Amino acid sequence: MAKPPQLIASVDMGSSSFRMIVARVEELHGQSQIYLIDSLREPVRLGAGLDENKNLDEPSQERALLALQRFGERLRSFDADNVRAVATNAVRVARNSATFIAKAEAALGFPIDVISGVEEARLVYCGVAHQLPVGQGKRLVVDIGGGSTEFILGEDYEPLAMESLYIGCVSCAQSYFADGSIGARAMKNAILSARREVAVLRRELKEGSWTHAIGSSGTARALAEICISNGFTEHGISKAGLEHIRAHVVEAGHLDAITLNGLKADRLPMMPGGLAVMIAVFEELGIEQMEVTDGALRQGLLYDMLGRRHNDDMRELTVAQFIHRYKIDPVHAGRVRELTETLFKQLVRQRPVLKEQLPMLNWAAQLHEIGLAISHNGHHKHAAYMLSNADMPGFSKREQNQLATWVLAHNGKLAKVGSLSDTPLHWAAPLCLRLAALFLRRRDNDPMPAARLTLTEQGVQLSLPKSWLQSHPLSQYSLETEVDQWAKIGLVLELVARRS
Amino acid sequence: MAKPPQLIASVDMGSSSFRMIVARVEELHGQSQIYLIDSLREPVRLGAGLDENKNLDEPSQERALLALQRFGERLRSFDADNVRAVATNAVRVARNSATFIAKAEAALGFPIDVISGVEEARLVYCGVAHQLPVGQGKRLVVDIGGGSTEFILGEDYEPLAMESLYIGCVSCAQSYFADGSIGARAMKNAILSARREVAVLRRELKEGSWTHAIGSSGTARALAEICISNGFTEHGISKAGLEHIRAHVVEAGHLDAITLNGLKADRLPMMPGGLAVMIAVFEELGIEQMEVTDGALRQGLLYDMLGRRHNDDMRELTVAQFIHRYKIDPVHAGRVRELTETLFKQLVRQRPVLKEQLPMLNWAAQLHEIGLAISHNGHHKHAAYMLSNADMPGFSKREQNQLATWVLAHNGKLAKVGSLSDTPLHWAAPLCLRLAALFLRRRDNDPMPAARLTLTEQGVQLSLPKSWLQSHPLSQYSLETEVDQWAKIGLVLELVARRS
Repeated sequence: MAKPPQLIASVDMGSSSFRMIVARVEELHGQSQIYLIDSLREPVRLGAGLDENKNLDEPSQERALLALQRFGERLRSFDADNVRAVATNAVRVARNSATFIAKAEAALGFPIDVISGVEEARLVYCGVAHQLPVGQGKRLVVDIGGGSTEFILGEDYEPLAMESLYIGCVSCAQSYFADGSIGARAMKNAILSARREVAVLRRELKEGSWTHAIGSSGTARALAEICISNGFTEHGISKAGLEHIRAHVVEAGHLDAITLNGLKADRLPMMPGGLAVMIAVFEELGIEQMEVTDGALRQGLLYDMLGRRHNDDMRELTVAQFIHRYKIDPVHAGRVRELTETLFKQLVRQRPVLKEQLPMLNWAAQLHEIGLAISHNGHHKHAAYMLSNADMPGFSKREQNQLATWVLAHNGKLAKVGSLSDTPLHWAAPLCLRLAALFLRRRDNDPMPAARLTLTEQGVQLSLPKSWLQSHPLSQYSLETEVDQWAKIGLVLELVARRS
Repeated sequence: MAKPPQLIASVDMGSSSFRMIVARVEELHGQSQIYLIDSLREPVRLGAGLDENKNLDEPSQERALLALQRFGERLRSFDADNVRAVATNAVRVARNSATFIAKAEAALGFPIDVISGVEEARLVYCGVAHQLPVGQGKRLVVDIGGGSTEFILGEDYEPLAMESLYIGCVSCAQSYFADGSIGARAMKNAILSARREVAVLRRELKEGSWTHAIGSSGTARALAEICISNGFTEHGISKAGLEHIRAHVVEAGHLDAITLNGLKADRLPMMPGGLAVMIAVFEELGIEQMEVTDGALRQGLLYDMLGRRHNDDMRELTVAQFIHRYKIDPVHAGRVRELTETLFKQLVRQRPVLKEQLPMLNWAAQLHEIGLAISHNGHHKHAAYMLSNADMPGFSKREQNQLATWVLAHNGKLAKVGSLSDTPLHWAAPLCLRLAALFLRRRDNDPMPAARLTLTEQGVQLSLPKSWLQSHPLSQYSLETEVDQWAKIGLVLELVARRS
């Protein structure tokens, strides 16, 4: 009997539009392919709802929640494993993102990851690369979003350089064309302001470092549509075409007076901003002609989901690269990872729901000494800073913060960590990491005793052979201090010396 | 005519004692030697003045200020160039260190640097190495202070590994023997607690990795004095001797009942704490016998001062190592450094007092992209975090914070930087760094125009050839934005287009 075809979906909560796609996965000879079967777009313009204090205002949140409810309805029969939803720049920079995301997850019915600009770039490229033929040489992909623009230099499926800048069509429109009027001077300043940002990428990405330029966002498709519909070019976007549009727009002088063919009404408010950013990119990087593609973040998310199922998880690679880049002692990291896992699996046996935390805990254990790259004193704090702020391909912001919290908690006082409570049995993972670090503190190959960890009614019990404790007074002392530490945040950790 | 001999002095504001030494420098064949001519010690016990909120209390501050006034009197005729004063752990961790240091500098009459634990370790080793013969193989130097203990593995003049832990004789005495009574259980726990900290160094520093163990602090000298005076050993400190002292002290049960030969009254309050830390170090690192030396931080400071005069500045080496370790683009860093210096020297010509900032500004320029090691987004903030928190041999905490402030200010909004005001013309250095970064933003070899920087009555004027500005609209636009940025924090930056 044939299995019913599997459906997967992705949701991209962009700063200009929200988009959702649903696709069918077909497996053949161990390879997976994706066939798009449905797509939805909602022109939420979330980025326009950021007020002067960087809070998302009520109207924009309402637009967003309505859109997500509609997406959620379409996805109601989906398993959580088959849906990936991400939010990008507008939520990334919003002060009230935490409360907004909670409401958004309730509306959608699925967890939402806030991702960094560089992670967005990686996923965009993943989506674009699957739409284009291989063997075309190096390409520059430019994804102009509402609040950030991603640049990727890549070849075939491989991104070679990824950058993300805080310029976008919504934010540019708000800064220079807020009341709908489009002055020649405002347009000039909008372009110069964007060029100033793009200038930092010039050396890495200017003409000559790639053979094709490709635009992947709604802005690029809209500009191409205008260029073609008005006969400025035959395909894609040309530099001359952009200048024609600029001349027309400035002459019109106001959004309402623009009469270009091919321009959709819901694109109109962001068009002059998107145009300014695109002209800046063309001028600064020496682009004469750009092709456009349908591939984008939302497709990239689907391919990334497939990759994780085929043991091709980008996060694994990122952790390996960090161990190398920040010179983490791989032997000690491996020892701590192994013991942490051994301890944690005893708890998983009692509470299977914990199992889903294991991959993240393994990565936290491997990275727990990353802060030594800055200084030994307070290295757990430096580690938390690095893990919260570094570009970590494959990890969402939430996952980075989870790693940061566990690593921060891996030694010293627990009170500093605050709430660990966004996971079930929130103390379980950091407890296992702390115990592993404690037992292995001397960094030698002293054989470990058989430590048994059991959930009790009051908390958790750690049992060790009495003879081992007697011959390891230092570990015994440290474990007693550990009991006190946990007591301070309300967990009963019971230490038992067993006969054998 | 022979030059009068030059005198130099150092002041070490330790957590247990404050010490000052004065020495004569003799130069021969380009080599310098130091002859001690005076020394003072004040048993301030500053570390004991840290209250539960980590503030230095009034009595301890008063003791400190009185001691510094006395030192200051002795140093009244000295040039600032010939005095180096540093504060270590007690001030490092004190919440109210900034206000205390201001008063302390007024009392002493010289600037005071707060140094990190690892920098302290480096300077201790420098002092010790100059007291000991070369060619003795690897040695482990242990410097038990009031609030921190430094460990250095070194050979001849070269430190090979440096560590600093938050354990010390004053803090240990306060935690376990605060009321003067010395219980057997308290002593055991004091030792175990210290051993737990030392355990992390075991793999790197245990027996076998060195041939001699050397103690360099007042604690080590006091314990050696007791060992010898009571016939426990013939020289230095032996493991058995420490156990004899422990037995005596625990049997006495109280500070007042201790009757050991060789113990000075002002050492008595810290002795049981120092003993516990020393026993922990012996047990955990497998030491059987330790020799003691007079070399210490205060001598290291003098040799370090001499090194800086002979183009052998440790800070230069640290910057070079950081460029390598954090993969800073050396070409771009060099370009920015050079242009920053060119601009700054124009201001120095008008205000010679600025000249002393030039070395620090050069280092800031070389390190201004260090934050890219964490992430491109907000890299100036990551840089400030790294420069404030990293171990930077040769730099004081104040200097690290100075670098961090300038690098934080090197792009983006200026309001975030807050006060730049602990230097004269506090805006001058960051202005030059910002302008250099702005001109070189494209990272290419586009020839620079002759930029002229002049102090005016209202602020500063930047003049550029009109033709260059016209052919560089992007730079012109950026410079206009720069004028606005500085206006926001009250500096008039005037942009002038000159004819040629």
